[in-house]
Amino acid sequence: MLLSELARLLHLPWQGKDVEISGVNTLADAKNFELSFLANPKYAHQLASTQAAAVILAEGIETHSCLISTNPYLDFVRAVQFFAQDQGCLTGISTLAYIHPEAQVAPDAIIYPFVFIGQGVHIGSGARIFSGCYIGENCHLGDNVLVYPHCSLMAGTIVGNNVTLHAGVVLGSDGFGFAQAQSGLTKFPQIGRTIIEDNVEIGANTTIDRASLGETRVGQGTKIDNLVQLGHNVQVGHNCIIVSQVGIAGSTTLGNEVVLAGQVGLAGHIHIGDKSRIGAKSGVGQDVPPGKDMSGIPAMPHSTYLRVSTITPKLPEMRKRISKLEKELEALKKILMSNEQENND
Amino acid sequence: MLLSELARLLHLPWQGKDVEISGVNTLADAKNFELSFLANPKYAHQLASTQAAAVILAEGIETHSCLISTNPYLDFVRAVQFFAQDQGCLTGISTLAYIHPEAQVAPDAIIYPFVFIGQGVHIGSGARIFSGCYIGENCHLGDNVLVYPHCSLMAGTIVGNNVTLHAGVVLGSDGFGFAQAQSGLTKFPQIGRTIIEDNVEIGANTTIDRASLGETRVGQGTKIDNLVQLGHNVQVGHNCIIVSQVGIAGSTTLGNEVVLAGQVGLAGHIHIGDKSRIGAKSGVGQDVPPGKDMSGIPAMPHSTYLRVSTITPKLPEMRKRISKLEKELEALKKILMSNEQENND
Amino acid sequence: MLLSELARLLHLPWQGKDVEISGVNTLADAKNFELSFLANPKYAHQLASTQAAAVILAEGIETHSCLISTNPYLDFVRAVQFFAQDQGCLTGISTLAYIHPEAQVAPDAIIYPFVFIGQGVHIGSGARIFSGCYIGENCHLGDNVLVYPHCSLMAGTIVGNNVTLHAGVVLGSDGFGFAQAQSGLTKFPQIGRTIIEDNVEIGANTTIDRASLGETRVGQGTKIDNLVQLGHNVQVGHNCIIVSQVGIAGSTTLGNEVVLAGQVGLAGHIHIGDKSRIGAKSGVGQDVPPGKDMSGIPAMPHSTYLRVSTITPKLPEMRKRISKLEKELEALKKILMSNEQENND
Repeated sequence: MLLSELARLLHLPWQGKDVEISGVNTLADAKNFELSFLANPKYAHQLASTQAAAVILAEGIETHSCLISTNPYLDFVRAVQFFAQDQGCLTGISTLAYIHPEAQVAPDAIIYPFVFIGQGVHIGSGARIFSGCYIGENCHLGDNVLVYPHCSLMAGTIVGNNVTLHAGVVLGSDGFGFAQAQSGLTKFPQIGRTIIEDNVEIGANTTIDRASLGETRVGQGTKIDNLVQLGHNVQVGHNCIIVSQVGIAGSTTLGNEVVLAGQVGLAGHIHIGDKSRIGAKSGVGQDVPPGKDMSGIPAMPHSTYLRVSTITPKLPEMRKRISKLEKELEALKKILMSNEQENND
Repeated sequence: MLLSELARLLHLPWQGKDVEISGVNTLADAKNFELSFLANPKYAHQLASTQAAAVILAEGIETHSCLISTNPYLDFVRAVQFFAQDQGCLTGISTLAYIHPEAQVAPDAIIYPFVFIGQGVHIGSGARIFSGCYIGENCHLGDNVLVYPHCSLMAGTIVGNNVTLHAGVVLGSDGFGFAQAQSGLTKFPQIGRTIIEDNVEIGANTTIDRASLGETRVGQGTKIDNLVQLGHNVQVGHNCIIVSQVGIAGSTTLGNEVVLAGQVGLAGHIHIGDKSRIGAKSGVGQDVPPGKDMSGIPAMPHSTYLRVSTITPKLPEMRKRISKLEKELEALKKILMSNEQENND
Repeated sequence: MLLSELARLLHLPWQGKDVEISGVNTLADAKNFELSFLANPKYAHQLASTQAAAVILAEGIETHSCLISTNPYLDFVRAVQFFAQDQGCLTGISTLAYIHPEAQVAPDAIIYPFVFIGQGVHIGSGARIFSGCYIGENCHLGDNVLVYPHCSLMAGTIVGNNVTLHAGVVLGSDGFGFAQAQSGLTKFPQIGRTIIEDNVEIGANTTIDRASLGETRVGQGTKIDNLVQLGHNVQVGHNCIIVSQVGIAGSTTLGNEVVLAGQVGLAGHIHIGDKSRIGAKSGVGQDVPPGKDMSGIPAMPHSTYLRVSTITPKLPEMRKRISKLEKELEALKKILMSNEQENND
């Protein structure tokens, strides 16, 4: 595609030579037929040496062929979308899939071999279900869902439109609920369900339990990374970002646009307010009001956490200083007392 | 079902109107044909407004139609069991499964399409094996096992009666054992096996390695949540509770009724005593005697941890106080010394 | 096999009775037809009571039948390799697999039922692909790869020779990349790929994302445990050891022979130098130079961490000591001031 054509598609001004673009890459790795971008000033020096055919960059630093943008990173992402290719090498509904006679599958859906589709399932238009997925009875999948291999959607799970599930995702597994009886742990049968709203993306091998009663819900536009665990009755708001290996215990709720960094753990039955952000590896045991940045185990305001982190390695030194103070104070006391004694003598 | 009939099944006294019950729900969400419960006094105010047809509650606070219980939560769990419905929409042994001619599958088992059952496998009566499971050669599964989709039981794994495996569970994967040789890391072939005793439940995408030599074992009645990792030769006792994303390194042993909260990590070759409980996100590097509550990284007694956690955010303040003490002490010393000087003059 | 034959195969001297060996085990559990070993002097007392037919041990402590070794653990591992048996009960290419007409599968490969092999895939000689694996279009697998059940190799993934993937591994899932647009989070299409070099082993349910642009790469000889997450564009060097539940954020690079213990988290865009080791549960946010041992959240030198860990539980006591010092100092000041006053009077 010509640079001018790309400029037209992205609604961006361009200048320089109208080169042919057939791919995208970083400044460091781009070849002379690829588009690149400069968003972080740290990499500005690479502009001189890059082989890129053209670069998306901010006004005022134009070089040879370029697209001029007020948000070069976002516009590069939009450009990549023109060059990215969907995965998959089959079309149609495979005769090697099992589709229950009482399931409804849109005729334009792509269903791979070894997919199981249960009774009462609805699969919308434009769906692509890769090899080996299990879609349990009475699941309802919207339009344009993309379900990569080996996903398990347990009975009654609801998935909205334009949802992407990466390989190995489990939706609607039983929540972890047991009551202590005389005879041992008795299972609380998990009879709720899991609902995934529109435009959600869920990473590989992530697990989202069904509710014990009621619903576990992931709100529209939310993005979840790999190996994340959401317990029963968790409610996630809109456009949240949940990074890899996060665990959220049962009945906890997230507002909108919450960010949870990698390996965060949230206790059960708490609420994280809109736009709050929790730092990597933090453990949160209490409600977080909206708009707060929290970090640490247990979590504290992020600015406090940064100061505490600087001081923690100095604990041995602090302890020595306390011991020294105690000794010196003791010595002073002795001197004072002996002075008193002298004065009294 | 009539309330009186439910009361009979649960062996509980009841009173009020003998209403028809056709479901279960929380006090807040229950409709006028559903049973609810009150266990936590915090929710007692909901009794006035609930639409529930009947409520399980303690003696002394009876309202309209109710079941009277000394343990309303446990009895509600028992009631839910009457209304819960098993998952699954197929019966019989699918012709789309692969079953090795030298495998034994109980004739009343339910085997879904795309299940692989290897040579020498035994599958007991009442088993339900969902789509896509792999049961490697010489595995032995007891009666009434429930194996959800995409579980992998590697060769020689033993599973007891009434065991439930959620989607994506891996049993008997190789332990992580390598010896440093001149040529690089040399694999210690993992020739032991994994044994899961009766009444165990294991969460989605959890992995339990086979032993290097001997056995990895999960004791009867133990419940394991999603995305948990048990290393080779781990031994878990009876009726333990292991919450999501816990990791247990090789050869560590747990007594009975141990509780590990979410994201806990246990080092290898240690022992956690009966009924000990480890707090969320803790890291345990040493043996824990029976009946202890431990938390923190590294773990300390839970009561100490709570005090430490309160103080940690105050570290910067503590450091300033030490500096201030040092300055003031220095000043005092100077005064004292000058006094001495004066006295000596 | 006779002890003398085993000695010949391992190039080790032996002595005692030339017993028949038909298995391997620990000193404690070995039966009278099994070989054992003594590497850790802690277990030397078991030599007296072991039932083992023969023992691999160091010179100078020979007992009955033994093999004499300068590295008994490594030589035992080599011995185990003679007694270990490969998993699997099928040969050949199953007619129940789906193989795209434009895929190349070596004729001596073993392909299980319900495997999906896409367009343009190459699978080398000696490959064993277990039930239910998905090999996306244009994947390239070298010779002697061993892929256990339910692995998903997304389009374009490259796997070297002698690689082992345990059950449920996902290679080439999309990296977690989104840009904030007015309309919400916009996906950065992940158009790079994942490359696994020779002699790598990857544990069950581990996920390794493809690069956004370019490559995610795991270097030769590296061993990765279960439930690990590698983000997009991560680069792992040679012969690294990455223990269970580790998470590595995008674009981070590891040198050679790096060791990451269980549940470690590495931030994105950092570098861990050759032979550095990171302690269990640590969180690393900055570059680590070669040869360093680091621990803690955030990570500090391991020796510092050990001292800090000892002191942390004493924080409440330290705080009390500071308060006591403050009071005593205040009291001293008063005495001094009153003395001054007296002197001045």
